[in-house]
Amino acid sequence: MAVLEIRIELKKGVADPEGKNTKKTLESLGFKGLGEVKSVKLFEVEVDLPADEAKKAGEEMCRKLLANPVIQNFKVTVR
Amino acid sequence: MAVLEIRIELKKGVADPEGKNTKKTLESLGFKGLGEVKSVKLFEVEVDLPADEAKKAGEEMCRKLLANPVIQNFKVTVR
Repeated sequence: MAVLEIRIELKKGVADPEGKNTKKTLESLGFKGLGEVKSVKLFEVEVDLPADEAKKAGEEMCRKLLANPVIQNFKVTVR
Repeated sequence: MAVLEIRIELKKGVADPEGKNTKKTLESLGFKGLGEVKSVKLFEVEVDLPADEAKKAGEEMCRKLLANPVIQNFKVTVR
């Protein structure tokens, strides 16, 4: 049983209102020296496949369902 | 400038409807052999601090804002 870690993040240049508002709120709570704050979505998927096939299946999951290719990049790693 | 990776996931036993529905939909798309599907939230935070202080600041961010201690665990790593 492989565990896929599927990481889906916004492409460069795409607005990230969740990240921006998180940064603003952290600053209002007194945190200093903050740079960019990015929000990322992660799925952990258990799948009953050998590692190489599992990775391919994970990428297929992103293309078919999990990621929006217009605004998001995905990265699949197998643990 | 350190980059914090702040990972926020549901505690064991807490319902994860997003993960469950994702699993159901993946199965309806033809993916087989799936085990648990978990949804996880990730923040990447740039912060102008040395690594050890950055990590402490990240944990403080979770306690004060990012995580709900009743249902979520958090883990902060510094890159």
